Amino acid sequence: MSSDRQNSLIYPVILCGGGGTRLWPRSRKAHPKPFLPLIGGRTMLQQTMARCAEPSLFAPPTLVAGADHAPLIEEQVPGLGATALIVEPAARNTAPAVALAAARLDPDAIMLVCPSDHHIADVNAFHAAAKAAAGLAHGDWLVSLAITPDRPETGYGYIKPGEPLPGGVKVERFVEKPSRELAEQFLAEGGYAWNGGIFAFRAGKLLEELARYRPDMAEAVMRSVAEGRVEGIRFHPAAEPFAAIVGESIDYAVMENTDRAAMVPAAMGWSDIGNWASLQDALPADPAGNYAPSNAELVDCQRVLAVSDGPRISVLGLSDVCVIVDGDEVLVTTRDAAPHVGKLRGASEQ
Amino acid sequence: MSSDRQNSLIYPVILCGGGGTRLWPRSRKAHPKPFLPLIGGRTMLQQTMARCAEPSLFAPPTLVAGADHAPLIEEQVPGLGATALIVEPAARNTAPAVALAAARLDPDAIMLVCPSDHHIADVNAFHAAAKAAAGLAHGDWLVSLAITPDRPETGYGYIKPGEPLPGGVKVERFVEKPSRELAEQFLAEGGYAWNGGIFAFRAGKLLEELARYRPDMAEAVMRSVAEGRVEGIRFHPAAEPFAAIVGESIDYAVMENTDRAAMVPAAMGWSDIGNWASLQDALPADPAGNYAPSNAELVDCQRVLAVSDGPRISVLGLSDVCVIVDGDEVLVTTRDAAPHVGKLRGASEQ
Repeated sequence: MSSDRQNSLIYPVILCGGGGTRLWPRSRKAHPKPFLPLIGGRTMLQQTMARCAEPSLFAPPTLVAGADHAPLIEEQVPGLGATALIVEPAARNTAPAVALAAARLDPDAIMLVCPSDHHIADVNAFHAAAKAAAGLAHGDWLVSLAITPDRPETGYGYIKPGEPLPGGVKVERFVEKPSRELAEQFLAEGGYAWNGGIFAFRAGKLLEELARYRPDMAEAVMRSVAEGRVEGIRFHPAAEPFAAIVGESIDYAVMENTDRAAMVPAAMGWSDIGNWASLQDALPADPAGNYAPSNAELVDCQRVLAVSDGPRISVLGLSDVCVIVDGDEVLVTTRDAAPHVGKLRGASEQ
Repeated sequence: MSSDRQNSLIYPVILCGGGGTRLWPRSRKAHPKPFLPLIGGRTMLQQTMARCAEPSLFAPPTLVAGADHAPLIEEQVPGLGATALIVEPAARNTAPAVALAAARLDPDAIMLVCPSDHHIADVNAFHAAAKAAAGLAHGDWLVSLAITPDRPETGYGYIKPGEPLPGGVKVERFVEKPSRELAEQFLAEGGYAWNGGIFAFRAGKLLEELARYRPDMAEAVMRSVAEGRVEGIRFHPAAEPFAAIVGESIDYAVMENTDRAAMVPAAMGWSDIGNWASLQDALPADPAGNYAPSNAELVDCQRVLAVSDGPRISVLGLSDVCVIVDGDEVLVTTRDAAPHVGKLRGASEQ
């Protein structure tokens, strides 16, 4: 590994897809999670961009998004470079989206794939992990920037660690959402990490592995890019070959198949803000564990989240509850039930 | 007691005062409980009027209300007779309000004082009790149409029964809001009843007893009526003497002092709809105990009340909770805490 490679910049690839129905009613189809200021004044996308803006570490970013959200991106992230925004002709999950970006980069470029709607409290830890992951990616490892678990969460995929690598660990195998017992066992054993959906790849290596395990997808993506057209900051891959792709996540299509999977475990205060309870966990709280704006009143409440786009919220005598007021929708959910919000009629019929 | 008296009509006196902050935010100062359609399509006042409209039993009603609410009354209860609406020059609690109406009636008229914001499920039982109470009132008893308790409620006043009377019971004494232990003891002993604020008096006897125990108040009311003026359906007592009255409830001013207090116990499905939980108890419920309009969705909920003036309410995983959406206010309270809603900032600052 040359020192030139070690010092080369990392190319952020920011994925802006996803519906985010579990943060309904604040998150809606036309205005999903990446584009909302859920924590602090900036939107999740703006915070993701800011994390990847350190000029000593990162090259200018590439964003991948659906056509519906391109105007939102141009509004929230002004000053993007030419062709920095790849507009997906259709929603086909993360593997094709990542491959589109890889195909537009130099094969030797190290790309760091980042969802645009995750929260990372410790940006320094993120930068350190990204640097370590880039080092492994230079050596043609496909690297998950994996999250050090702090609880036996059953909603995430786990990664079982294998042999040590310089700056990381080889992946032994991926374990999809485990049972509570299994998750507790993982934590007790140690070394396991959550697959957080943040990856470092050498662009050429990613495409090589995709071609090995999903040759049709790889070919369709390459054709779609070859026949694409430029429009200012937007790059439009050709729609016809892309639409024919059978959608699949990068995890299923590549990471769980390759024998070059590695991980860099990172304790960086990560959350995917997957539901109102996890957003609550990422927000500050008063001594009773409540979070509420100034025009709310919580009396005899513990661990209550109250978020409104206008009306005052008054809560009396409740614990472990999230109250969300947004336009013509009012949601009241227990923290335990928060992951099921996406199944509500309001969330699904929008 | 002559048969003529027995057959004479009862004069309903409907009291339309009170703030009703415990049903905030639906109930507001400008639009309090009597004027809201909380149960069914008609307002509480309209239902009270309908209960007292049986022509074989009742004479035309007299209403007593503040000037602020006179237009609401004229809108909700069209067709009132001349001077049927007595406009209180100032809010001075129920004793002066009742006395105003008594002073406008024939001294031998039997008046039935009814709050305008109570719910009575069994109207036949109400009529039967009113008839019995009127019989006692003809004999110069001051009669509480008392509620047969169905639970050891601590929020109401209790009446201890004394010796039997024809059609009722002499009042031994009034017991203000008792402790839980005491309330349970009352229920176990039997015969105790709740003081529901519905009274039958011979108008002249009520004024006589008021003059005995509150001579200043009685005199001020008589002066105020003597110097009052008529304006269509409204009668305006003179403001100056009335304003000087120290406000007091009819219970304190007369009922707890007189030795002529009697009660007619009535099991008539009564509720004072004193808070959201008691409203919920008076509303129908689905098999899970929930009550929600068609544009609400309750999932894994038990005994949840969801009431909205527009926005959809979605509730997930909660039990024994009331969710109220009204204009710029959203209230979420446990059933247990519902009596304390009036102390919320929103309820008190309106």
